[in-house]
Amino acid sequence: MNDWHLAPGFRFAGVVTGLRPEPNRRDVAVIVSDRPAAAAGVFTQNQVCAAPVQVSRARLPRPDARAVVICSGNANACTGDQGLADARRMTDLTAAGLGCDPEQVLVASTGVIGRPLPMAILEAGIPRAVAAATTGAEAFSDAAHAILTTDTRIKVATAQVGRHTLSGFAKGAAMIGPNLATMLGFVVTDAPVRPADLHESLKRAAAGTFNCVSVEGHTSTNDTVLALANGSGDPLAGGDLAAFDAALFDVCGRLARQIAADAEGANHLVTITVDGCRTAADARAIAKAVAESALVKTAIYGADPNWGRIVSAAGYAGVPFAERDLSLWVGSTCLYRAGEPVPFDAAAASAYLKANREVAVRLELTHGSGSCTFYTCDLTPEYVALNADYTT
Amino acid sequence: MNDWHLAPGFRFAGVVTGLRPEPNRRDVAVIVSDRPAAAAGVFTQNQVCAAPVQVSRARLPRPDARAVVICSGNANACTGDQGLADARRMTDLTAAGLGCDPEQVLVASTGVIGRPLPMAILEAGIPRAVAAATTGAEAFSDAAHAILTTDTRIKVATAQVGRHTLSGFAKGAAMIGPNLATMLGFVVTDAPVRPADLHESLKRAAAGTFNCVSVEGHTSTNDTVLALANGSGDPLAGGDLAAFDAALFDVCGRLARQIAADAEGANHLVTITVDGCRTAADARAIAKAVAESALVKTAIYGADPNWGRIVSAAGYAGVPFAERDLSLWVGSTCLYRAGEPVPFDAAAASAYLKANREVAVRLELTHGSGSCTFYTCDLTPEYVALNADYTT
Repeated sequence: MNDWHLAPGFRFAGVVTGLRPEPNRRDVAVIVSDRPAAAAGVFTQNQVCAAPVQVSRARLPRPDARAVVICSGNANACTGDQGLADARRMTDLTAAGLGCDPEQVLVASTGVIGRPLPMAILEAGIPRAVAAATTGAEAFSDAAHAILTTDTRIKVATAQVGRHTLSGFAKGAAMIGPNLATMLGFVVTDAPVRPADLHESLKRAAAGTFNCVSVEGHTSTNDTVLALANGSGDPLAGGDLAAFDAALFDVCGRLARQIAADAEGANHLVTITVDGCRTAADARAIAKAVAESALVKTAIYGADPNWGRIVSAAGYAGVPFAERDLSLWVGSTCLYRAGEPVPFDAAAASAYLKANREVAVRLELTHGSGSCTFYTCDLTPEYVALNADYTT
Repeated sequence: MNDWHLAPGFRFAGVVTGLRPEPNRRDVAVIVSDRPAAAAGVFTQNQVCAAPVQVSRARLPRPDARAVVICSGNANACTGDQGLADARRMTDLTAAGLGCDPEQVLVASTGVIGRPLPMAILEAGIPRAVAAATTGAEAFSDAAHAILTTDTRIKVATAQVGRHTLSGFAKGAAMIGPNLATMLGFVVTDAPVRPADLHESLKRAAAGTFNCVSVEGHTSTNDTVLALANGSGDPLAGGDLAAFDAALFDVCGRLARQIAADAEGANHLVTITVDGCRTAADARAIAKAVAESALVKTAIYGADPNWGRIVSAAGYAGVPFAERDLSLWVGSTCLYRAGEPVPFDAAAASAYLKANREVAVRLELTHGSGSCTFYTCDLTPEYVALNADYTT
């Protein structure tokens, strides 16, 4: 844990409340800012969105956030008016412990959909989490653990920019049983950033990182990424703000890669880079089609350098191109150049896929300078088995 | 085979040429019309489209088609100029056997992508197929077998409308190893239909049937559906044409269902009906999102009535709605009504999914009268294993 840079002025906790069936599993996290913090968020674009998303979205951006409260094990999604009341009650309980206005508290949840939150557990557990919040790597690690669902490990990324620190943790798009994929991410910093600047910076970072991760293309009802900046003094501007932007993008990018690498049943982290498009949106459409193709993902699981599946997935992305405009590399091996198959050593290409837990697919077009990097994983029998488990 | 209605005036063959490694596997089919036939086609929308698609598309619609030649085992896709020359050569060989213009012959292929057609085999095999073409159920069955790839059985549907007959066969969206999913469908009729009417009728039928089948959302480079109508006399018009339209839709619909039911590794045929949308396009977008969700498909494999996955997939289809606008049935059980979970007997709902090879999912909105029926299958470990097999 020694290389984590933790932003000063924030406290963390992750406690066991009994929300989850597993004994001693941390399930409620809080992040507390010692001072009012600029806060911004980005959220799921699903039409069906969970109560905590609705509550947090309505409160952002703002200049004076004091805390975030997160529970895992129950998504509080598709729970109607009771769900909204319960999400607000989570923020009331947190605010009471801090002596602030509930509007200064944000909330996120992940877990089972369609079941009421067991509020008796949270009425007791949230005050305990707030009281436990403290500084240091152990508390940060506890919070990072408390938001996990089927993740096998915590996701943490930190950075320094000038004399300021960014500290982020996230949970993955893994899923099992009746749980939905949910991506949660939290980044705190002691940099002084205006709320509107923080919102723009977070939107840009999320678009290029969290929004470029796909496990199976199923958008959760609960996805939430929040940023809190509690620095005092003159807000960052000009080159300093640009440097902060880049650092936030970097932290979000490293969290996003960890999410793809730890996806349910995944054997490979697959990085798909598309260059040479008319626009970045064209590049993203092609990268997303390749990333979400079950045929591409099973081929990578099988260590099969099956370039026809990749090229044909690019072909249905909705981006017009001629075959001669397209070339493909897997690792450093060119398999398809300017619309023609390239003779290649299939055994060596397969060995590359077998030997590397992280593999690179690169498509290059000849249309312009639009590019995108997308993260996904392979599709394995374990994914199917885990998600077919009868648990409803 | 006794209940097949075969349109008079057409001959069929399916022969073993050696294009496929399996011994005695039929791999070249021909359909011959005794008279010039109105012909229309619909094709893959993939930007990367196979040589036979390019050749057939350029020749349609037309009033005087005489034959279709189809090979399985090699897709003739991503094969450059040589592939185009080879596809045309397939039509030359067929035309030579019939004494017609090669432009009167259409061509389709399915199988491995990116490998040149072994033309020596086809130079010998196609004339043999043309010479063998004959009437009757056995020849029709041979042709239906010769176009299969990883399908486990032939797909046939026939209908009668007035004194005319429609006879169709298809192959499925199954796939294995380096093969691409490819959907091929052929419908012949002795009804007299103008080429332009046939094209409109086929477009409508395909939009509501073949284009509403998804195994994993990976659009093939080779998808082709052709219709040939060789009746003489006054072309159908008015109510007769409308009745023909309905019969063609019915035949295509029954072929499409068989394709979904026989998809690679599938245990369940899943029919997804969406009603009550503002437009049919809205309904199709929601049905497609649900049909292509790996989470929905693994839940059905696991006999898990996991309504949260279905509702949340509807939510990311790009169609605006409020949760209270939406209700969901699985089989005859309502699981979610007007945005609220409905208490239900989970064991009974699971038993329904376990006991039925064909299961029905129905979503109802409150926006209008737009509707769509979509066909898919479950996602099983067998699908992953089959498609991960190293064969490149």
